[in-house]
Amino acid sequence: MYGAGDVRVEDVPDAQLVEPTDALVAVTHAGICGSDLWPYQQMEPTESGRRMGHEFIGVIEDVGDHVQTLKVGDLVVTPFVWSDGTCVFCREGLHTSCLHGGRYGADGVDGGQGQAVRVPHADGTLVVLPVGKDDELMPSLLTLSDVLATGHHAALSARVGPGKTVAVVGDGAVGLCGVIASRRLGAEQVVLLGRHPDRIAIAQEFGATDIVRERGDEAVERVLELTDGLGAHSVLECVGHGESTVTALRIVRVGGAVGRVGIPQEDSIPEATRNFFDNVTIAGGPAPARAYIEELMPDVLEGRIEPGRVFDRFVPLDDVPDGYRAMNEREALKVLIEP
Amino acid sequence: MYGAGDVRVEDVPDAQLVEPTDALVAVTHAGICGSDLWPYQQMEPTESGRRMGHEFIGVIEDVGDHVQTLKVGDLVVTPFVWSDGTCVFCREGLHTSCLHGGRYGADGVDGGQGQAVRVPHADGTLVVLPVGKDDELMPSLLTLSDVLATGHHAALSARVGPGKTVAVVGDGAVGLCGVIASRRLGAEQVVLLGRHPDRIAIAQEFGATDIVRERGDEAVERVLELTDGLGAHSVLECVGHGESTVTALRIVRVGGAVGRVGIPQEDSIPEATRNFFDNVTIAGGPAPARAYIEELMPDVLEGRIEPGRVFDRFVPLDDVPDGYRAMNEREALKVLIEP
Repeated sequence: MYGAGDVRVEDVPDAQLVEPTDALVAVTHAGICGSDLWPYQQMEPTESGRRMGHEFIGVIEDVGDHVQTLKVGDLVVTPFVWSDGTCVFCREGLHTSCLHGGRYGADGVDGGQGQAVRVPHADGTLVVLPVGKDDELMPSLLTLSDVLATGHHAALSARVGPGKTVAVVGDGAVGLCGVIASRRLGAEQVVLLGRHPDRIAIAQEFGATDIVRERGDEAVERVLELTDGLGAHSVLECVGHGESTVTALRIVRVGGAVGRVGIPQEDSIPEATRNFFDNVTIAGGPAPARAYIEELMPDVLEGRIEPGRVFDRFVPLDDVPDGYRAMNEREALKVLIEP
Repeated sequence: MYGAGDVRVEDVPDAQLVEPTDALVAVTHAGICGSDLWPYQQMEPTESGRRMGHEFIGVIEDVGDHVQTLKVGDLVVTPFVWSDGTCVFCREGLHTSCLHGGRYGADGVDGGQGQAVRVPHADGTLVVLPVGKDDELMPSLLTLSDVLATGHHAALSARVGPGKTVAVVGDGAVGLCGVIASRRLGAEQVVLLGRHPDRIAIAQEFGATDIVRERGDEAVERVLELTDGLGAHSVLECVGHGESTVTALRIVRVGGAVGRVGIPQEDSIPEATRNFFDNVTIAGGPAPARAYIEELMPDVLEGRIEPGRVFDRFVPLDDVPDGYRAMNEREALKVLIEP
C-alpha cells in the first residue's frame, strides 16, 4: 500500500530465513482485515510503500535450525502478530504484548497478503492445522488468525457467561464473530447493533436473538427496551469510533462490562462519571489470538461454529486492490485472498 | 452544611419512624468522609442547608412493624448508602445501585453526623455488631461503613490477588485502607504513592512495601523502577483527580487493572489508546459496602487488621465544624465524631 486507496501487487525479493527461529511459510489463504481499511482510507502517500496483511494460513517451506515444533510441509495458521511464546507476557497469555514479538508487514517481516512470509519466532507463533490446505474449512480456520479470536476476546473482556445478556456493537466480521463467541460462552440473549441486511442475516444464523438497526440515542433506547430497562451485562464494542463507543458505554447494565476490541479512534473514554457510579468495567484491547487458537479450533473442526461465513468474496492475488475497494465500499463483508 | 466552609451544628426535629421498614438509630460514632470535603470546598451557599454524614454506628432505638432482623438495643453499623437488600442489584451484591435505595442526608433521610438517624430499609441496610458500643474496636468497625469497604472494593476492582504487585494512588484514609485490603488479599508488593510523613508511617504499618513520594512523570518513573520496568498488576486509584487518574493509568502493567474509587472529577478517562493496546482493565466505582461488611468484620474483630488507625482526631458533636476544617487543612487525616 502506497497511500490511501493505492494498493499495488508487486514482485518483491523472495522471502527467506534470517534467524534460526524463523519459518518460511508459503501462503495459501489470507484475509483483508477491517483494520487494513484504516490506512486504505487515511494513509499518507509514501514512496517505499507498506507490506499488508496479518491474517494467513500457509504451508511451511523451510525452518531455521532452532525451530523444534514445526516441519516442512506442515499447514499452519498464524495469529495476527508474532510472539516468542516464552516471555513473561506470553506465559500469561498476552501474546500481543510479547517482549520480543512484532507485527507483520513491519521491521523487515513480510505481510501476509502475498506468496510467502518469513515468520519470526515460529515455534511461539504458528499453530499446525490437522487438515489439508484444500479442506472446505479453510475460511473458518483462517478466522482463528484474527476475527474469531478478536470476537472471543471481546466476549471474555465483557465477561460473557451463561445466562447473560449481551449487546454487540458493530456488524462487521468481528462483531459477527462476537455473536458466535457470546453464544459459545453461554449467553442467553445476544442483541446485535447493525444495519446491513446481509450481515444481520448472518448474525441471526450465528445466534443473535435481537437486532437493533437504530443508531445513537434511539439505539440506546431500543436496547434498554429489549433488556427490561436495565441494559446488557456484557457489551462488545467492535467498531472503535467515538459514536459506537458512546453507545456501548450507555447500553451497559449497572455492574456490567464493556469489552472493546475496535481500535479506538479517540484517546479518551467518554461517559466516565455515569460508568463510575454504575460500577461498569471497561476492558479489552488487541486479542491475544495465539492464546485462544487451540481452544477455538475444535469447535471449527467439528463444525459447531462456522465463522468462515464472514468471507463473502474470494480473490486471487492480482485482484487484491479490488478486494480492498469492495470491502471499503461495503460491497464485500470480508475478502479471502488465495495466492 | 450551608455552603463551602459553612458547617453548623443545629437542633432539628427529632428523627422518627416513617415507613414500617425503618429503624431509628441513636448515633454513637460517625465519620467525616473525604467525599464530605468536596461540598466543604465547593458547595454554593444555600438557605436550607444539607444534612451531612453517611458513616455511622449506633444503637437501635425503635423499629417499624415490618423490620424482622433487628431489635431495640442492637448496636449496628451502616454502609454509606441504604438499600433494600432484595432488588436485582442488591442480590448481585451491588447495593450502591439498589433500585429502592438512597443516600443519607437526602430525600427526607437524616445525615449520620448527628444524634439520630431514620434508616430506611433497615433489614437490608444495617448489620449488627457483636460488641458493646464502648469497645475499643469502634474506630475500626466504623471503617466498615465506608473507607475499609472502599479500599477493599478498589482492590477487588483492580483484581488484587496472591503474589501480585499493587500500586495505591493516594494516602488518604481510603488509600491506606487499600493497602490493608491489598495485603489481606495476598499482594506481595504494595507501593503507596503519597507524600505525608504521618500517613506514610501508617501505610508502612499497614503493610506497604514501598513508598513513592514523587508526583506526575517522576512518580510514574519511580513505580516502573520498583516493578522491573513493568508497572503494577493492580492499581488502586483512591483520589479521583485528573492528575492522579493519569498517574494510575500510566503505572499499570500490561494486562493489569485499575480499580478506581476516588470520585472522578472529570467525565472522560484519559490514556485510552495506550491502555487499549496494553489490554488494561478499568473498573471500580462506589463500593457496595453492604456486600463486604460480613466478610471484613471478622478480621477487624479478631485484630488481624486495624483500619481504625486512620482516625486521628475525635470530636464531640459541637466540634464538627472544626473537624471539617482540620481535615480540609490536612491537619487531621480522618475525624471521628462521638455525639
